[in-house]
Amino acid sequence: MSQATLDLMHYVRDIPDFPKPGILFRDITPLLAEPTAFREAVQRLAEHYRDRQIDAVVAAEARGFIFAAPLALELNVGFVPIRKPGKLPFDTHAFHYELEYGSDTLEMHTDGILAGQNILVVDDLLATGGTVRACCKLVEKSEAHVVGCAFLIELKALGGAEKLAPFEAFSLIQYD
Amino acid sequence: MSQATLDLMHYVRDIPDFPKPGILFRDITPLLAEPTAFREAVQRLAEHYRDRQIDAVVAAEARGFIFAAPLALELNVGFVPIRKPGKLPFDTHAFHYELEYGSDTLEMHTDGILAGQNILVVDDLLATGGTVRACCKLVEKSEAHVVGCAFLIELKALGGAEKLAPFEAFSLIQYD
Repeated sequence: MSQATLDLMHYVRDIPDFPKPGILFRDITPLLAEPTAFREAVQRLAEHYRDRQIDAVVAAEARGFIFAAPLALELNVGFVPIRKPGKLPFDTHAFHYELEYGSDTLEMHTDGILAGQNILVVDDLLATGGTVRACCKLVEKSEAHVVGCAFLIELKALGGAEKLAPFEAFSLIQYD
Repeated sequence: MSQATLDLMHYVRDIPDFPKPGILFRDITPLLAEPTAFREAVQRLAEHYRDRQIDAVVAAEARGFIFAAPLALELNVGFVPIRKPGKLPFDTHAFHYELEYGSDTLEMHTDGILAGQNILVVDDLLATGGTVRACCKLVEKSEAHVVGCAFLIELKALGGAEKLAPFEAFSLIQYD
């Protein structure tokens, strides 16, 4: 199948009632299991950002790492991991944020990205956008610039792109 | 610098007393931040296994994903994530194992790999080998074959390679 016609959505599996009743989970593991589809997704994300002078790709653990690592290599820039508290060994910036139930904190090394750099934030899926917005805030704590936020999947009904604005959201697969 | 002379150890940073006093932590984030070194590491791992008829790469979250995803693409095979309980949405195999303090469980989708397949297990660092051995056991629950376990770093003093036997351990950087 040519790249122009490869339907990435075909490799996403719907799982009803996960993680709780009434939720339809979009399972990306079939896409990861098919290297033609996985590579195509990484390359399409790279194409969108190839002329945007990206200096580094950042992503939060764990699923964000799956796309961010190969995407950083495809763009020939560094990959900077964002992790839960206590996981990163060097000096860190931290950002605390509220979730639907409770709150969470993410950390990034203070020397991971440099002031003035152009940063691409990556995750597998944009739902309400809380985690990726926290990543953007960590980028801004380093006085760097968020060029955009790239996703394999966007769940449009949850309004994540609007909540993420003015940060740009770009996705390869959209569900209403 | 040519591939033959790129010293990957140069990109690993030593952090004393992390996560607790007396522990010297090997921080791989400088390597991830330098795409020449990150790509070189992925390609050296791929070279070691390119003629071994690998069908899929598996890795446990979170840091294992960083090397497993680009390595799977480099080998042109699927990537199958292994996760903490409750994270994977489809039917799973689970493996429960003991740690120095307490215990842990890892899960893998039952359809992630097929009986008889040749599987490469990947992680960033081999310490005592508990996590990667659990991954090997999950592979065996699917009646697949562990061809080897590949690491960026091996901490030889902890004897992980011996504990992992008969599963093969291959690493790019060794510390005594």
